[in-house]
Amino acid sequence: MKNYRPLSPSSRTIMTPGPVEAEPRVLRAMSYPVLGQFDPEFTQLMNESMEMLREVFCTANEWAFPVDGTSRSGLEAVLVSLIVPGDVVLVPIFGRFGLLLVEIAERCGAEVITLQQEWGSVFDPEVIIQSIHRHKPSLVAVVHGETSTGQMQPLGEVGTACRELDILLVTDAVATLGGTPVETDEWKLDAVIGGTQKCLSIPSGLAPITYNDRVERRLKQRRSVEKGLQNSEAESSHLRINSNYLDLSQLQDYWGPSRLNHHTEATSMQYGLHEGLQVILEEGLQARFARHKLNEEALVAGLQAMGLQLYGDKTSKLPVVTCVQIPSSVNGEFTRQMLLNHFGVEIAGSFGPLQGKIWRIGTMGYSCRKTNILQVLMALEAVLIHQGMKLPAGEGVQAALHRYTREDSIIQQAMR
Amino acid sequence: MKNYRPLSPSSRTIMTPGPVEAEPRVLRAMSYPVLGQFDPEFTQLMNESMEMLREVFCTANEWAFPVDGTSRSGLEAVLVSLIVPGDVVLVPIFGRFGLLLVEIAERCGAEVITLQQEWGSVFDPEVIIQSIHRHKPSLVAVVHGETSTGQMQPLGEVGTACRELDILLVTDAVATLGGTPVETDEWKLDAVIGGTQKCLSIPSGLAPITYNDRVERRLKQRRSVEKGLQNSEAESSHLRINSNYLDLSQLQDYWGPSRLNHHTEATSMQYGLHEGLQVILEEGLQARFARHKLNEEALVAGLQAMGLQLYGDKTSKLPVVTCVQIPSSVNGEFTRQMLLNHFGVEIAGSFGPLQGKIWRIGTMGYSCRKTNILQVLMALEAVLIHQGMKLPAGEGVQAALHRYTREDSIIQQAMR
Repeated sequence: MKNYRPLSPSSRTIMTPGPVEAEPRVLRAMSYPVLGQFDPEFTQLMNESMEMLREVFCTANEWAFPVDGTSRSGLEAVLVSLIVPGDVVLVPIFGRFGLLLVEIAERCGAEVITLQQEWGSVFDPEVIIQSIHRHKPSLVAVVHGETSTGQMQPLGEVGTACRELDILLVTDAVATLGGTPVETDEWKLDAVIGGTQKCLSIPSGLAPITYNDRVERRLKQRRSVEKGLQNSEAESSHLRINSNYLDLSQLQDYWGPSRLNHHTEATSMQYGLHEGLQVILEEGLQARFARHKLNEEALVAGLQAMGLQLYGDKTSKLPVVTCVQIPSSVNGEFTRQMLLNHFGVEIAGSFGPLQGKIWRIGTMGYSCRKTNILQVLMALEAVLIHQGMKLPAGEGVQAALHRYTREDSIIQQAMR
Repeated sequence: MKNYRPLSPSSRTIMTPGPVEAEPRVLRAMSYPVLGQFDPEFTQLMNESMEMLREVFCTANEWAFPVDGTSRSGLEAVLVSLIVPGDVVLVPIFGRFGLLLVEIAERCGAEVITLQQEWGSVFDPEVIIQSIHRHKPSLVAVVHGETSTGQMQPLGEVGTACRELDILLVTDAVATLGGTPVETDEWKLDAVIGGTQKCLSIPSGLAPITYNDRVERRLKQRRSVEKGLQNSEAESSHLRINSNYLDLSQLQDYWGPSRLNHHTEATSMQYGLHEGLQVILEEGLQARFARHKLNEEALVAGLQAMGLQLYGDKTSKLPVVTCVQIPSSVNGEFTRQMLLNHFGVEIAGSFGPLQGKIWRIGTMGYSCRKTNILQVLMALEAVLIHQGMKLPAGEGVQAALHRYTREDSIIQQAMR
């Protein structure tokens, strides 16, 4: 055989909108020996993860569990399980991941109606609500935190409007879950999809979802037990979902007390999820959101003191992603490569119309900490100066430090 | 928050047909820090895994990569990407996982024709070939190793027949890959799906697949670039695949040199796959198959010396799963529980018509080793005697030991 170098990944400071650095405790958990998927120790761990997911999703929903795949497997599981071909689906688009929802919904056979908002801003909720009244879709699918543009859509009023008209509201909270409030019940979100590799700081590979009894009723109408496990033909619905792997009615039977065999659960990823959720609840959601906010403010202060311009509407800024306009005097991709190769720091570019126009800096989960913020500011300054850009050297990191020490003195005063 | 016990899974001897014990080196690899998915270090690792997968699949195919999900995500990815609704698909069924192929193909919109073989045996290849000539399907989907019955279907002649008629042959090798030969090219298999948590001894969560240029041509006709990444409408096909997550044409763009963004790769699982494939190639495929065969023979010798009856046709026995008829004097589920609770040993029951009738003992991957075989035989004997069954105490383990020492003396002679 060919000789491959033994696996030994370099240590990186990952300041992208995901995947971000995983919690060290999560990585340790993933190295524990495997348990069988129906081992009582393992099913107890699954039940505990469901309990913890309910807390993280701020919901009293019975169903909160992960789909075995990356975040978009969770999006597709919810959409393919709820959309009957021919259904009208409304998707308000304010960035790339709105386009992804359209893409998935169309492939599920939906007649998709879109609303377009200029990238870099979000919708006035009234605009979405008017469109809901006009088109009476059976389902609205919307992104909460749009990482491609660094914007966050307010959802409470849209949720109320959907509930009044008995329309299902499906929310992509992949970027926001665990980093900023996602109020599933208060905002009347019927199904919410999260991602592990962003603010939860668990490696990519699972998509935690939650849904309420309104969704469960629709799933029940489409429930089909797998042929190899059926007791009668009555266990097959004529509205059978067009996927086996992503069929939520089957996944629910597997995660529920009947434990009906479906896939072979990804044991090690489940260890990581369980440990990661414990870390999050030990920190506390409010403290975690405050930490994300503080580090975002320090980053923004540093970038602005450096003379850089942020991209997008400030009033609807996504607190866990900061978009920066690439100055005309530097090369965006060269900057990213220098950051990675000389400083071990990773930041992101963007997609479609924003490619080459902005950098995106994430402040998510375990990556969202003071040492990382200060490092990315110092490294970025050095790379910009190296390319001949004129900027007030040293001021970026001082502005960030000032934000942290101000916080420190507030905390010290409060503790007196 | 509620206080959960710190994660600390018990050590188990897992002798089921999967998930089995993971290689310790694989578990260690999974605990390394995360890399960004487009970090050059990570894309190199992806390329190396593709190279190693080609060796494991015994193929010169360009495309060999994992789908991010459990094994059935790989089955569905291949079927949903190849089946255009209305296509005729032939599925020869000789156990539960044949029924799963029917289930998935139907949900992809196929008109499915089935062939039924009594469980516990396999098809005479001529029977499948005649049916292929009669029905002229566009695709044949067949299980190689059927874990539900412990049987293995010979595929070479079927492959030749399909190739002559330009029909695609899709093979579920989830149970066999890495434990017994899977000759993708020699048998003319157009697409093959493996699983990580069986003979590869990597935790569940990835589905390695390979496919040839015949498959790639069909994918090309259905290729659609994602809306958020499209440069022109021409990049969307009218035969667009009914899934985004499992669209092989998009996954190929992501694993290929264009690295077109799709999902966020499951970094830690990829570390595990890379390390696991290295372990396999270091052992060598032929040595690995011989080890699986030796341990199977020792297990079978032990079970028979204990007076137990095997289930199924011996001539087509799957070498990595041994099915045992549950003696009428004992309770099958109670036996499994006692094995787990008193001895930390896990064996499996079966599904559908075989539920309560047979136990299934896996000899797969890292679990397939002498100490485990001797332990399962001793523990099973103890649990059967505890339930009042009369059997020649001690003889099972002696028969297995005899098989091993015979092998040792052959090796010693050969080394002289």
